[in-house]
Amino acid sequence: MRFFAVGFRTDVLRGEEMTKGESTRQRIIEQAAPLFNQRGFEGCSMKDVLEATGLEKGGVYRHFASKEELAAEVFRYSWTRAANLRREGLDEVDGAVEKLRYLVRRFADTTGPIAGGCPLMNTAIEADDGNTLLRGLVHAGIKDWKKRLCAIVEDGIAAGEIGREVEPRWVANSIIAALEGALMISRMEGNRTAVRDAAATLESMLNGIAVG
Amino acid sequence: MRFFAVGFRTDVLRGEEMTKGESTRQRIIEQAAPLFNQRGFEGCSMKDVLEATGLEKGGVYRHFASKEELAAEVFRYSWTRAANLRREGLDEVDGAVEKLRYLVRRFADTTGPIAGGCPLMNTAIEADDGNTLLRGLVHAGIKDWKKRLCAIVEDGIAAGEIGREVEPRWVANSIIAALEGALMISRMEGNRTAVRDAAATLESMLNGIAVG
Repeated sequence: MRFFAVGFRTDVLRGEEMTKGESTRQRIIEQAAPLFNQRGFEGCSMKDVLEATGLEKGGVYRHFASKEELAAEVFRYSWTRAANLRREGLDEVDGAVEKLRYLVRRFADTTGPIAGGCPLMNTAIEADDGNTLLRGLVHAGIKDWKKRLCAIVEDGIAAGEIGREVEPRWVANSIIAALEGALMISRMEGNRTAVRDAAATLESMLNGIAVG
Repeated sequence: MRFFAVGFRTDVLRGEEMTKGESTRQRIIEQAAPLFNQRGFEGCSMKDVLEATGLEKGGVYRHFASKEELAAEVFRYSWTRAANLRREGLDEVDGAVEKLRYLVRRFADTTGPIAGGCPLMNTAIEADDGNTLLRGLVHAGIKDWKKRLCAIVEDGIAAGEIGREVEPRWVANSIIAALEGALMISRMEGNRTAVRDAAATLESMLNGIAVG
């Protein structure tokens, strides 16, 4: 009985401690996300993170050994949130071309979940000549995005919806390039015109690859 | 005679000083350009600039009051070089659609003149939430690029080469977005596939706007 009680008690305590530690860790990531996304890895200091979270130095370094480690977790979090938001509702859309159209429109109409623009592009531009860890994560993010788009195109070809001559990689690259590049213009101009213009071009590209 | 001699002498000295000062200033800009383009405004310190130029602190601050002032001159220089390189030979191309095709192909085939990718995109991503001076310069750079592309489309419409229903702004936004976004992917992947894929999509867009 004592064994079970102690065992139980310990489990509960350990559980509570882990939950608190994990939730602090998660809170740091969430509060650091817009800072890194707006100011960049170089432009955001651990001091900025301490100020935003209201934690002592030890409270942050307990969870992240370095700014780089925190930035990597922040990128994972921000990119997962952005990518999930952009494909929300996709499963309910029928047909490959319609799915691609949906993704293009959704990108054009959806404001990013983390202030500061697209975490993938922001981190790509900063890490392309530098930070190896972040560069690897961005590369993996692009790879995953392309893979998902290619899979839809391949399904469309298999279903006879998209022409057999269509190269899935070409479609994926064209969609990602146009949307991300347009977002850069839109953020500079302070309106969504460029993103909508790019979406219109992609719509006509998708009309072109659809059979019949 | 003495008056003229003194006058002449002073002029020559002043002329020599200005020339030397101007050439040092220009050398600082040129040597700082790849540093800022690769590391970003936040990631590049005045110490980095001193190391690259081999100048003393006073030698740089004599020409630029602040890092921001230097970064602004560096952006002007880098963007002018990149933009000029991308449109080199354009005047010899006849016809609006052919000119647009030429610009797209040239972007896809030309390596940027300043190490670190496109200065416009790099600075846009870093300045979109921050530095007002740089943000203004990037905005002006995008505006100028769009204006030049729109002028070609307008000439094409006036010449009956491009359909009257075509919106020049849409063409300009689509070209800039696709090329810049693709460059981001290409730099991450370490090859030019994404830029070539985006160029192919733009080619078919241009085929679509051409009359007949």
